[in-house]
Amino acid sequence: MIACSLGAKSREIIFTASATESNNTVLKGIAFANKNKGNHIIISSIEHDCVLNSAKWLQSQGFEIEKLPVDKYGLVNLKDVKKAIRENTILISIIHANNEIGTVEPVKEIGKICRENGIYFHTDAAQSFGKIPIDVNEMNIDLLTASSHKMYGPKGAALLFIREGVKIEPLLHGGGQEFGLRSSTVNIPAIVGFAKAVEICQKEIEKETQRLTKLRDQLIKRVLKKVSASYLNGHPKKRLPNNANFWFKFIEGESIVVALDSYGIASSTGSACSSQKLKPSHVLLSCGLKPSQAHGSLRLSLGRWTKEKDIDYVVEILPKIVKKLRKISPFK
Amino acid sequence: MIACSLGAKSREIIFTASATESNNTVLKGIAFANKNKGNHIIISSIEHDCVLNSAKWLQSQGFEIEKLPVDKYGLVNLKDVKKAIRENTILISIIHANNEIGTVEPVKEIGKICRENGIYFHTDAAQSFGKIPIDVNEMNIDLLTASSHKMYGPKGAALLFIREGVKIEPLLHGGGQEFGLRSSTVNIPAIVGFAKAVEICQKEIEKETQRLTKLRDQLIKRVLKKVSASYLNGHPKKRLPNNANFWFKFIEGESIVVALDSYGIASSTGSACSSQKLKPSHVLLSCGLKPSQAHGSLRLSLGRWTKEKDIDYVVEILPKIVKKLRKISPFK
Repeated sequence: MIACSLGAKSREIIFTASATESNNTVLKGIAFANKNKGNHIIISSIEHDCVLNSAKWLQSQGFEIEKLPVDKYGLVNLKDVKKAIRENTILISIIHANNEIGTVEPVKEIGKICRENGIYFHTDAAQSFGKIPIDVNEMNIDLLTASSHKMYGPKGAALLFIREGVKIEPLLHGGGQEFGLRSSTVNIPAIVGFAKAVEICQKEIEKETQRLTKLRDQLIKRVLKKVSASYLNGHPKKRLPNNANFWFKFIEGESIVVALDSYGIASSTGSACSSQKLKPSHVLLSCGLKPSQAHGSLRLSLGRWTKEKDIDYVVEILPKIVKKLRKISPFK
Repeated sequence: MIACSLGAKSREIIFTASATESNNTVLKGIAFANKNKGNHIIISSIEHDCVLNSAKWLQSQGFEIEKLPVDKYGLVNLKDVKKAIRENTILISIIHANNEIGTVEPVKEIGKICRENGIYFHTDAAQSFGKIPIDVNEMNIDLLTASSHKMYGPKGAALLFIREGVKIEPLLHGGGQEFGLRSSTVNIPAIVGFAKAVEICQKEIEKETQRLTKLRDQLIKRVLKKVSASYLNGHPKKRLPNNANFWFKFIEGESIVVALDSYGIASSTGSACSSQKLKPSHVLLSCGLKPSQAHGSLRLSLGRWTKEKDIDYVVEILPKIVKKLRKISPFK
């Protein structure tokens, strides 16, 4: 069922405990298993922390990591991909859709370049799986990470697609579960929940994508119109149907999050995984925002239970909050 | 609560998804973080596959692994521990109680030797936590692995005790959860279940240990008496209260498992994690059994719901099965 939804074979899917584990497995597993071929790995500058920090650790172990820049929308440029490739490149790992700004990368085209150059291609689809259609064959993907709890499944399950024939070292050595590629007692309850979540998503994805895209565009259009000096982060079209991300001049995202919360609106600034850190988002900085602008950013996510009246409510509350915060802002 | 049950501080406990992950984290994390100090690691020959195979992988990365022998009961000899220590030893990892034969190792004494020599000491307590009391301070333990589903908690949660000050590299890099030592969305539902299981075990451990030890000894005594040419694997006294492991001349454990199953009795031969492999148990071979003897082994586990009448039932059925199988055995 899960394999099928990706156009993969069952034996090409292994289950892990988290997208972080899947991403760590790919970066380290490909690196260590293909050392004899080369030590050069290409990623983008807007990867999730688990890809960035796995890459950073690999660097300390003698691997060379090259981070591709992105444009102001967060898009990787295909020319940059081609230019970065060397004789000793063993892996290119590019996030499918960014977790903060929702920008969807040209994965199919990057995959094609990888294929032409005999380089493994991995995409971190933790944010996109279940939200936009994915076919690993059409999209030239060799390895793919997806997560259960990001698409209404239970916590504790994630998957890793590994195309037949890909040479990879396990991250977890042991009893040899999951075709010898991921040892550990298999978390059956979580995986069954994950499979059910995939089944539901598959049934609804087409209609739901249309519905959310419409709501998302309404939200973006109305916020940009009602709030002066407000800007959209990420690409206006090439973005996840459930993601909106703004930045507002003169104020801090953190204060907006707190204020929105008191109105019963959940939002975030930056990535959930980095929420305890005070550093500005590396994703927004990569898109060219200054630290102060990145701090002024706000992420609003839509979901299966978001209705038009919720958009109305946010559009009513948010401008008032921004206005109030700007009044007391020391930055303006 | 969980920390407290081990005599640890809260900040010394991190949660992982499985004991396999905890064990992998210790072996690899200590190895990579302490490379500058040395590359020599000591384990026993009866560790769980996840320790053995992590060690094997480290060997391929330039680390030296020394496997201590065990006596016929599966016990590590303290003299062997002392003898194996070198200038460049960075870690000693010895299983607390073996998963197949239930033998409980002299962990406190091994820990003392480690402490005297300034070497980190890890014990894999996946089988013992919740079954016999553990105090990481009294027992000189620096790192400890324990599992939720081995003691009536849900699958998907395990813990790793890391004594304050221990230098370790994470296995999962990313958002920096669990004090930066284990990135991944924290699986709260599984951990809450784990904590509840620990609470229940703590309350019952003393009474339950007494009850199970009595039942276990009954089972062992009666089986050895009623079945000719039957032997106990593991130590008669220094063993988990819930474990009994026999070997029977002339027959295969696998056939006994199948036959017992038809009578509603669940049993196993070798480790559950290795059940798909046809190789004889490395634990039993280490105890001096020949491959044919190891293949004739049977593990019976007791638990919270085992009653005296269950022992009676096994003691009634098992001898009949052994007799029947021996009749048709080509080995006798």
